[in-house]
Amino acid sequence: MHEVSGIELDPQLQRFRRLRLDLAYDGTDFHGWQEQAGERSVAGEVKQALERLLKHPIKLIGAGRTDAGVHALGQVAHADTPTTSPRPESIQAGLNSLLPSAIRVWGVREVEADFHARYGARLKEYRYQIWDGPWLPPFLARYDWRSRQGLDAAAMARAASGLDGTHDFTSFLAAGCVATSPVRTLEDASVARHGSLLVLRLASRGFLRHMVRNVAGALIEVGRGRLDASRLTALLAARNRAQAPATAQAQGLFLVAVSYHDGPLSALERPPEPVVTFGETTFGVS
Amino acid sequence: MHEVSGIELDPQLQRFRRLRLDLAYDGTDFHGWQEQAGERSVAGEVKQALERLLKHPIKLIGAGRTDAGVHALGQVAHADTPTTSPRPESIQAGLNSLLPSAIRVWGVREVEADFHARYGARLKEYRYQIWDGPWLPPFLARYDWRSRQGLDAAAMARAASGLDGTHDFTSFLAAGCVATSPVRTLEDASVARHGSLLVLRLASRGFLRHMVRNVAGALIEVGRGRLDASRLTALLAARNRAQAPATAQAQGLFLVAVSYHDGPLSALERPPEPVVTFGETTFGVS
Repeated sequence: MHEVSGIELDPQLQRFRRLRLDLAYDGTDFHGWQEQAGERSVAGEVKQALERLLKHPIKLIGAGRTDAGVHALGQVAHADTPTTSPRPESIQAGLNSLLPSAIRVWGVREVEADFHARYGARLKEYRYQIWDGPWLPPFLARYDWRSRQGLDAAAMARAASGLDGTHDFTSFLAAGCVATSPVRTLEDASVARHGSLLVLRLASRGFLRHMVRNVAGALIEVGRGRLDASRLTALLAARNRAQAPATAQAQGLFLVAVSYHDGPLSALERPPEPVVTFGETTFGVS
Repeated sequence: MHEVSGIELDPQLQRFRRLRLDLAYDGTDFHGWQEQAGERSVAGEVKQALERLLKHPIKLIGAGRTDAGVHALGQVAHADTPTTSPRPESIQAGLNSLLPSAIRVWGVREVEADFHARYGARLKEYRYQIWDGPWLPPFLARYDWRSRQGLDAAAMARAASGLDGTHDFTSFLAAGCVATSPVRTLEDASVARHGSLLVLRLASRGFLRHMVRNVAGALIEVGRGRLDASRLTALLAARNRAQAPATAQAQGLFLVAVSYHDGPLSALERPPEPVVTFGETTFGVS
């Protein structure tokens, strides 16, 4: 019988269980997803909780390396364990009791050994939230970037639709990005206004470093009337980061969901939608 | 011509302007509304910002002295100033640029000299939010009390309706409450479920210290099935705090609005309702 750190292994199984974790987090107080020496990271917290629960060293792989201050509704990660217990539901309950309330594990499942949270991802959805009302409600201050100026959402939507499809995104690529190619395909690029809230949505198999926030920064300039919607195509063609507007702040960004197959997200992959209420109105969600 | 701290006064007016402030705040990081030596309070922050803006000492009176960790959508306060400028809209803008994002001033108006935020209040509305879903979304963690057990909202609503009207609330009165009488009249006491969110609403001209949280604590016990709804009336009749369940945590409590006249709240008194969105669904609010 194998033994790892005093944990009994299944002699029949002789293999590791691969666990898929689905997570939501408020990124405000973390130095991003990725573990970094001396910094409090989301992955670091989850890894530490898993190690405490399963009593052996854990290697945790996440689908998207969200930056400091970026939030997630549906981050996906995987980790291997030689243990046969506890069951996934008990691991989820154990993790949520060990983790700070800013990180919640909303799903734990055993998956095939070839499932890979990062390399298996087919589509990632991000959203960027902008608030252009006269005052930003304190309860939303951690989740929205605030524009003091009213934004032209229709112009932003036109500009966003011009980014759909396959392009060289050099103009929206952060310094230090290690991607081998600046070409990416946007499956969806849209802007919708809901009262004082503007929601920019981008979906792609892969994004370049800071790409969503750089696109958001450019679309905000379009919304302010400082950049013509048609100019965005020229900015793309210029393939020059220096010509494009500044990166938008991290706090408005959410990793919404990650898909591991073609077509729309399955119900299991779509993060649960909480009921949210402020003021007099309460909103139920299907 | 009078002069206060170097500010010019209106020689015609010869009187002070009374300003009414309407405020929303996230109480998580404050030691309550009321100023306390050595503690960070909401009133302290607002007073300090007003003094910086108007350049003279300010006495700030709030409608409700919310406890540490309690939030507000529609707190009301008043303060006097001998200045004739800046205009209310500029004071609002100035305050919001000086205050932390957890405190927002959503209205500043000149009011009659006999307006009193505390003694003039005719009705205060509080709400207490409880979440009984399997996991509490990180974005709501600061605003809901979480029950690990599913709650019977119908039983809670029945129990709440039994509290409507005029009663001796000694059983729900905190130690150290300095009110001269424990008798209060609840204009509204209701419980509604919206998905995993339960909203307890209480309205009254005046509340005893910790009364809303003590009533919430008792209703949660009803929801858990540990206290029969009909027993709540007996608890009231007992006039004994020791027999009633524990005080519910501060984080679920919101001061919703304060009214200064008979009848329903006016549009000016009703706090604006932000659009809130998490997950895939965005909710517009009238």
